[in-house]
Amino acid sequence: MKEVVAGIDIGGTNTAFGLVDRTGKISVDSSLKTTEYPEIGDFVAAIATAIKKLLAKRPTLKLVGIGIGAPNANYHKGTIELAPNLAWKGIVPLADLMRKKINVPIKITNDANAAAIGEMIFGGAKKMKDFIVLTLGTGLGSGIVINGQVVYGHTGFAGELGHTTVVPGGRACGCGRNGCYETYASASGLVRTALLMLSEMREESVLRNIPPGELTSRKIAEAARKKDPIALKAMDFTAEKLAFGIYNAIGFSSPEAVFLFGGLANAGEMLFKPVRKYVEQNVQPIFRGTVKILPSGIPESNAAVLGAAALIWNELIK
Amino acid sequence: MKEVVAGIDIGGTNTAFGLVDRTGKISVDSSLKTTEYPEIGDFVAAIATAIKKLLAKRPTLKLVGIGIGAPNANYHKGTIELAPNLAWKGIVPLADLMRKKINVPIKITNDANAAAIGEMIFGGAKKMKDFIVLTLGTGLGSGIVINGQVVYGHTGFAGELGHTTVVPGGRACGCGRNGCYETYASASGLVRTALLMLSEMREESVLRNIPPGELTSRKIAEAARKKDPIALKAMDFTAEKLAFGIYNAIGFSSPEAVFLFGGLANAGEMLFKPVRKYVEQNVQPIFRGTVKILPSGIPESNAAVLGAAALIWNELIK
Repeated sequence: MKEVVAGIDIGGTNTAFGLVDRTGKISVDSSLKTTEYPEIGDFVAAIATAIKKLLAKRPTLKLVGIGIGAPNANYHKGTIELAPNLAWKGIVPLADLMRKKINVPIKITNDANAAAIGEMIFGGAKKMKDFIVLTLGTGLGSGIVINGQVVYGHTGFAGELGHTTVVPGGRACGCGRNGCYETYASASGLVRTALLMLSEMREESVLRNIPPGELTSRKIAEAARKKDPIALKAMDFTAEKLAFGIYNAIGFSSPEAVFLFGGLANAGEMLFKPVRKYVEQNVQPIFRGTVKILPSGIPESNAAVLGAAALIWNELIK
Repeated sequence: MKEVVAGIDIGGTNTAFGLVDRTGKISVDSSLKTTEYPEIGDFVAAIATAIKKLLAKRPTLKLVGIGIGAPNANYHKGTIELAPNLAWKGIVPLADLMRKKINVPIKITNDANAAAIGEMIFGGAKKMKDFIVLTLGTGLGSGIVINGQVVYGHTGFAGELGHTTVVPGGRACGCGRNGCYETYASASGLVRTALLMLSEMREESVLRNIPPGELTSRKIAEAARKKDPIALKAMDFTAEKLAFGIYNAIGFSSPEAVFLFGGLANAGEMLFKPVRKYVEQNVQPIFRGTVKILPSGIPESNAAVLGAAALIWNELIK
C-alpha cells in the first residue's frame, strides 16, 4: 500500500483536489464547482464522495489524512470564518464535518499558509526553518514560517501581511481600510499603479490604448519587457512597495528567504531584480546580504493542492 | 541547596547582575562599571570573580546557569557582534569566554528578548504563548514570542522592530537610515515630536522654557498631565506612531498581548489609552478586540537582571 494525503484547495469558484504521496507526486486529481454547493453539508458530501471514488479505483493507495487550504481558515479550530468570497456564512466547522464523512486526520489553513508548507515540504524551502511566502495575486497572501513552524498566532489568523498598512491614508482596500500592502504589492496593485503613472507621466504607452477595466499585470509586464516607459515605471514603483513590506518583515523575523509566488511574480527577473535592489538598499544593515528573494520552487498549477496536502505530511513527519 | 541562576545585564555604562531563583526572587545583586573593562578578558574575569564571591558567602545556593542580556547579542552563537555602545569591537565570543571561568549552561540574548522571556517566566505573560514586548527607552527594542518561543530568526537577530521603517524618508536614525520606528516611538522620539509640535503650533507651553537638549520624555509627560497643549499633542502623535508599529505587528504574528516597558511607558494611561484607541481603529477587522496592550508585569528596576536569568530558567523548564 502506498500512503497518500488528499489535498483540497477551496476557492470561491472552484475546488481542486488530488491524492498526493510523500514525495509530492499527485496520483490523481479532480475538481468541482464550489458555487454549485451553497449548503456546506452538500459540499462536504460531494467532496467526500469524490475522494472515495478516486480511492476505490486505486486499491494500492491508502488515505492517511486530508489537508485543506481555504480562505479565512482557522488552523486552531478547523473552521472557515466569515469568508467574504464563499457562500457559507458565519463560522463553518469544516474539519469536523469532513471527519464525519472520512475519519482520518484533517487539517485546514488558509491558502498562503498552505503555500508556505508546500514550499517547505516539496519546494524551495526544504532545508529552511525561517522563511516567508508571499502570494501575489488579486490580493497579497502571506505564509510565515519561524523555527520550522507556520505562524498561526493567538487567533489562528496570523500572517496577514497583505493588510498591514504601508501608506497611512493610502489606496482604498477591499477590507474597508486604506493603504494596505496588497493595494500596492499584488497583480491588481500593479494595475492601479499603472493607472497612476498614466495620470502622472506624459510619455506615450501602449497602455493608453487598453481600457482600464481590461488592464492586467500580465499586459503591463509584457509592455515593460518591450521597454514601455509607463509600464517600466509602474513595475519599478511596485517593486519598491513590495520591497518595503519585505524589509520590514525581515526586521521582524529575519528569514533565510522570501519566496514570491503567483500572478505578479510571473513577471520574473523584471520584478525580482528591483525588489532585491530595494530590499538591500533599505533593510537594516545587520540583515544585509542575509535574505534570498526567490521564485517559488513549486509549479503554480499544482501549488494549492500540493500545499494543502503538505499540511498533513508536515504533521506526520514531525 | 537552592538552585539559582546568575542574571547579567550588560549595558554600555553599567553591568548589573544578581542571583535569581526559580520564582524570580533575587537573592543578592551587585554591579560593576562596564566602561572600566575595555578588554573583554578583563571584564569576563571580573564578572566571574564577583559571581563566585556572591556564591561563596551563600553556601546554600547552587548555581545552575548564567543568563546574559547584552546589546547586539546573538543567541545562536553566544556572541556580541559589532555593538556600537560597547568598547569590545568585532565579534566577541562571550558565552565561550564565560564558560571557561564558570562551567555551567550559559545563554545570551539582547536586552529586549531577555525582557520578553522575563515577562513570560516571571511577569504578565506567564500563561501566554504569543506576545510582544516593546522596550521604549532611548531606542525601541522588541522581544517577540511566537508559540512559546522567542523569535531569533535565521541570523539570530530577529525582532528588530525599532529599525523597521514607519515613515519612508522620515527622521534620521542612529542606524544611518531614515524613518525608523524608534525615531518616533521611544522616549527620545517623544522629545523629537515635542520639538516638531513647538515648531508647528503657536500655543503657549512650559516646554518653550526648556532648552531642547534638556527636554526629556518625563518632562513632556508631566506637562501633558497638566494639560499643556504642546505636550498633549506630542503625546497623541507619539501614541499614533507607536500604534502603527503595533497594529502592523499584529498582522504579522497575531499576539495575545503587547507589553510596553521602559521610559516612555512610564507615562501610563496617558500613553496607553490613545495607543489602544489607534490600534483598535486601524488594526485589521479580524484582529479587533483580540490584543491586550499592557504595562510590563515586572518592576523596571529588576527587569533586566530578571530577564537575563529567565533566559536560563526558560531552558531548564522545557
